[in-house]
Amino acid sequence: MNLLLLTESDLDAEGRAELRDERIDHVRRILRARLGDVLRVGRIDGPIGEGRIEALDRERLILRVAWGGPPPPPLPVTLILALPRPKFLGRILQSATEIGVKEIVLLGTRRVEKSYWSSSLLEPAAIQRHLRLGLEQACDTILPRVELERRFRRFVEQRLPELLARGELIVAHAEGRHDVPADDATVAGVLVGPEGGLLDHEVEALAEKGARLVALGPRTLRVETAVSVALGGLLRRQPVA
Amino acid sequence: MNLLLLTESDLDAEGRAELRDERIDHVRRILRARLGDVLRVGRIDGPIGEGRIEALDRERLILRVAWGGPPPPPLPVTLILALPRPKFLGRILQSATEIGVKEIVLLGTRRVEKSYWSSSLLEPAAIQRHLRLGLEQACDTILPRVELERRFRRFVEQRLPELLARGELIVAHAEGRHDVPADDATVAGVLVGPEGGLLDHEVEALAEKGARLVALGPRTLRVETAVSVALGGLLRRQPVA
Repeated sequence: MNLLLLTESDLDAEGRAELRDERIDHVRRILRARLGDVLRVGRIDGPIGEGRIEALDRERLILRVAWGGPPPPPLPVTLILALPRPKFLGRILQSATEIGVKEIVLLGTRRVEKSYWSSSLLEPAAIQRHLRLGLEQACDTILPRVELERRFRRFVEQRLPELLARGELIVAHAEGRHDVPADDATVAGVLVGPEGGLLDHEVEALAEKGARLVALGPRTLRVETAVSVALGGLLRRQPVA
Repeated sequence: MNLLLLTESDLDAEGRAELRDERIDHVRRILRARLGDVLRVGRIDGPIGEGRIEALDRERLILRVAWGGPPPPPLPVTLILALPRPKFLGRILQSATEIGVKEIVLLGTRRVEKSYWSSSLLEPAAIQRHLRLGLEQACDTILPRVELERRFRRFVEQRLPELLARGELIVAHAEGRHDVPADDATVAGVLVGPEGGLLDHEVEALAEKGARLVALGPRTLRVETAVSVALGGLLRRQPVA
C-alpha cells in the first residue's frame, strides 16, 4: 500500500481524518508507522495529499490531512474482459486499476462458463476490494467503473459502436495480424478474450464493426498476463508526470 | 495447460510415451481427454508435436507421439529481477516464462530482505514447477535458466558489462526519463527493482555502466505487473509465427 485511501465519512470539516477499522492494523503492522509520521493519503475520487499521525492506538487513528494535487492521469482506455474464472478476477482487476484503467466491462462470450456469473466474487463489495488495492498501489483515488455485460451480441450492437466512435478497439487475438496502432492513433478500448479464446464468429462480429485484431506475440498467454501486456503497451506511451 | 511436457525418460525408442504420475490426473479431469484423443505435447528442450492417447486409466497414460516443429522463438532478453517476496516469485517466473524469457537473474539489492534467500520457494524444484507451468501455457519446451546473484555489486562489476556488450539494459525506474529504445535497438536485458524501489546509489551504479532508466508510465506498479508491462512491450515487437 503506497497510499491510504480515505472516504468522505472519514473526514471532518477541519481536515482531520479519524479511522476505526482494519486500516489501522495495516498502518501499524505493515507500514510500522508511529505518532508524528506522515503518510501519503488520497480521498476516493478526490485529491491526494499527506496525513500526519496525531493519534494511533489499536482502535483509533487520527490524521491531520493536507491536500495536495490530483492523482496521476487515468489511462483513457476501456478494458473489455471476457469474464475470467472468478478466482482470477480480483488479481486482474487490481492490475488493470494499477495501470490506470477507469472503465472495465466484464463480458459474456461463448467460452465463459455460465456458473461464473453467480459467483460471490462478482458482488460489488468483492470487486471494490480489488479496485481499492489497485488504487492504493498506484497512489490513485479514482475508482474504475465495472460493468457486467452477459450478452456478447448486445455488447457488439449497442456498446461497441459508441466505443468505436471514440477510437480504435484492439482485440488481443492469437491469429491477429495487424500491428498495434502507431503512437498517434487513439485507442479507446482493449478486449481480451476468455481462456480458450473467442469463437471464430465472435471474432468476425467484432472485426465487421471495425475492431483491430492484434496478436500479442507468438505465444498463448494467460488472461492475466495478456491484460498487463496489452494495457502495458499503451501505458508506456503515457507521459511521465 | 496447452501442452503436455514430456521428458526424455517418458519416451521409448519407438516414439511412445508412458506416464505414471500426476499428469494423468490433469489429462483426465481438466482436459477431459479420452482414448484416441490427440494432445499437444512437447519434449523438454526439444520439439513440439502431437500425442494420440493409446491407453488411459488412473495409473497409466500411453501416447503415440509424432514430433512436429520447434517451439515458438524465445524472447532473447535477460530478466533481472530483484528477488521478490518468495510467495510472489512463482507467479512472476511463470509470467516471464510464458512471455518467452530464457534467462532470469534473481538479484540481491539493498531493499531485498535477507530472509527471502533462505525460503524453500527458492529451491530448484519449486522454481522449476513454475517454469514448467509457464511453458505448458505458452506451448513452449525450452526451460529458462534461473540464476541467483545475491550481491548487487558483483552483478554490476561482472555480469553487467557482458550483458551490455550484447545490447541495452532497460531499468524500470519511477524517475526514469528515457524512452524505450526504438524498434531497431537491441534490448539485451530488463531490470525490475524490489518493492520500494532501488536505492539512489544502486540506480547510479547501473546508469554509470550505461543502463537506460525507463519509467513504465506515471504509476507505481506491483513488481508482477511491472514485469509483464516491461517485457510485454518487447514481446509485441516479435513477429508472429
